[in-house]
Amino acid sequence: MRYRLISLHPALAQACDARLSSAGHEPAGGLGDADALVVGIGAPDLGSALLDVDERAWEETIGRARTAFAAVRDLARALIEREASGRVVVVVDPPVLRAAERTGLTAVAGAFLSTIAEVAAVDLGPRGIAVNVVVAGWMAPAPPALAGGVPLGRLADPDEVASACAFLVSPDQAAYVNGATLAVDGGWFVTKAEGGNPLTSGA
Amino acid sequence: MRYRLISLHPALAQACDARLSSAGHEPAGGLGDADALVVGIGAPDLGSALLDVDERAWEETIGRARTAFAAVRDLARALIEREASGRVVVVVDPPVLRAAERTGLTAVAGAFLSTIAEVAAVDLGPRGIAVNVVVAGWMAPAPPALAGGVPLGRLADPDEVASACAFLVSPDQAAYVNGATLAVDGGWFVTKAEGGNPLTSGA
Amino acid sequence: MRYRLISLHPALAQACDARLSSAGHEPAGGLGDADALVVGIGAPDLGSALLDVDERAWEETIGRARTAFAAVRDLARALIEREASGRVVVVVDPPVLRAAERTGLTAVAGAFLSTIAEVAAVDLGPRGIAVNVVVAGWMAPAPPALAGGVPLGRLADPDEVASACAFLVSPDQAAYVNGATLAVDGGWFVTKAEGGNPLTSGA
Amino acid sequence: MRYRLISLHPALAQACDARLSSAGHEPAGGLGDADALVVGIGAPDLGSALLDVDERAWEETIGRARTAFAAVRDLARALIEREASGRVVVVVDPPVLRAAERTGLTAVAGAFLSTIAEVAAVDLGPRGIAVNVVVAGWMAPAPPALAGGVPLGRLADPDEVASACAFLVSPDQAAYVNGATLAVDGGWFVTKAEGGNPLTSGA
Repeated sequence: MRYRLISLHPALAQACDARLSSAGHEPAGGLGDADALVVGIGAPDLGSALLDVDERAWEETIGRARTAFAAVRDLARALIEREASGRVVVVVDPPVLRAAERTGLTAVAGAFLSTIAEVAAVDLGPRGIAVNVVVAGWMAPAPPALAGGVPLGRLADPDEVASACAFLVSPDQAAYVNGATLAVDGGWFVTKAEGGNPLTSGA
Repeated sequence: MRYRLISLHPALAQACDARLSSAGHEPAGGLGDADALVVGIGAPDLGSALLDVDERAWEETIGRARTAFAAVRDLARALIEREASGRVVVVVDPPVLRAAERTGLTAVAGAFLSTIAEVAAVDLGPRGIAVNVVVAGWMAPAPPALAGGVPLGRLADPDEVASACAFLVSPDQAAYVNGATLAVDGGWFVTKAEGGNPLTSGA
Repeated sequence: MRYRLISLHPALAQACDARLSSAGHEPAGGLGDADALVVGIGAPDLGSALLDVDERAWEETIGRARTAFAAVRDLARALIEREASGRVVVVVDPPVLRAAERTGLTAVAGAFLSTIAEVAAVDLGPRGIAVNVVVAGWMAPAPPALAGGVPLGRLADPDEVASACAFLVSPDQAAYVNGATLAVDGGWFVTKAEGGNPLTSGA
Repeated sequence: MRYRLISLHPALAQACDARLSSAGHEPAGGLGDADALVVGIGAPDLGSALLDVDERAWEETIGRARTAFAAVRDLARALIEREASGRVVVVVDPPVLRAAERTGLTAVAGAFLSTIAEVAAVDLGPRGIAVNVVVAGWMAPAPPALAGGVPLGRLADPDEVASACAFLVSPDQAAYVNGATLAVDGGWFVTKAEGGNPLTSGA
């Protein structure tokens, strides 16, 4: 496959290049000749209290979502014109899965992108284009203390997120995976580990 | 409570007025003196294939989401300034919960709004402002054939959606309900009834 | 409506009686002449590490789930025989929604019951029997420290959970609500408030 | 890794053996010397109307869930005793994700197992044991007509489900994946494709 990486954190982009190259894929010159796309929302620095969201923050968030959306749509149009099949991976940050104080626009942007991915999976699946979501776990420079809330007890390495992207890009490994969301978060989403067992911790 | 209704389908707005009035609430002059807000995304006419989403459709969707977001934020600011508590209900269409072909932007707008509601529930809850989501079931003018996929066998009456909004607005009935999503859809979301039982229908 | 309450925590049962009575409903003599059922899983004392689950804990959990399941099925059979419509509310504890350390069997029992509720909503909806789920927020004797993780900043009062049950039992208020899950948890589920904002808390 | 396969459909077990062998893993003699486990719920023949669930069907379902649960627990105990890390994949059928008429106990068993998996991910993650869920798409002998509801337009091949299991078993590929649910269903879950676009199909 020839792939494009768009709006990924630099460390993740580097790791994706490494994983995809070692799996025999190569970078495409542009969306027009790509078979695969891994697209994110850019840097995860959008946290702010809902009450403080102003014009600039809103425009920035919408602009990033639009860039990602346009990349999916434009790859799809090019693939259809070339009568080719393809694979798209949308990478979102953990807050898409659960609200946390003052993460407002990151959560919103993530929900936006993951919903676009699900809609795309339904609309484009019949044309041989699979679209899936990877929820990237907390990676540096996220604060190390976050590891305390992760059952695996540590933050993610970019390579670990990249290997999930490579899996979903692979027609050999993931041919029937479409419209799926794969969390690569060490179990962060399914736990409330910080609080211990609410049924017994006060006993 | 003094309430505001913003961007609801006309039939739903009328039904909300009736339910809220009969519960003793009254319309506010503006967000500045309101205690409660029921806000939607406008008419559900945004369906289109992802590939056909153009500038105009995108701007229309974003514009509606922004109107709803700004209403939530502005009510919250006014309430905090007045040191008052309040209640917000965000109304979204069913596609927020499950993608269907060619419903692209409606689904995206719904995900946008419901995520904003969850973030708002977390950010504003500590200030005494509860925020919840109602998923409005299919109502006329939705095609009657949709009733075939609803376990209750019929479309929703606007009054049935309005009564859920009135419940969530009520400090007596829903004081501890915050960050919740209440589907008023007859069971449409949890079923795939059209297809019968996939395990036995071919037998 | 004539209602039955089965396997609810005593304080919640008392609050349900009060709410349902004041709404004009009355207790039924048995499932055979009831129109409505509010059924839970019993006391929330099943917490234990997965590794420690033994024969006794397993049987206890399964037994509770079976009691609840049988109540739903038996009410449905009675209603169908009487050609009557009816309403069922299944009450589960918060861990159904998110795993926490050492809550193993409570979570499993909750998932069991809420899935039975969804299946029942689909199977029984066409016969005029609506089935919904209430996720009961943390109430005493849960440890008061749990309130720190709830956006509303306090535990639930049993009356607040009961009012949601009364809403879902009411044919006037919730006629089109079927297969829905209504969390009455103050926003506990949608937040990770203990950890603050993971995007900025380390800055 | 030395792996055990328990309660998988025969075609899936065969495909898992092939994928895992070609990835360099080998069968273990028993749970006591295994590093990895892929465990299912047995044959997907549990469909029945809720009203018809009798003693035998209930016992059969619970028995299968218990077998799977015990396998996860016993592997965990053995790994901990050997001070080894390990990986578990729980395979469930699609109804876990969405109720369909008359699939009652299959859905319940699936919810049971996937909740056990999430609880296990939280409890066992800190000990180096990752637990994840694969939702196996519809495979033969499911009725071919089901393919109409799948965006990819066809049923799953057992090898396609097996490759997801192999991914999740691989410490190289999925080291940070824990508590995740990966649907290998062609997009079936996220669509209501049979009904077309509810917003425009009546126009």
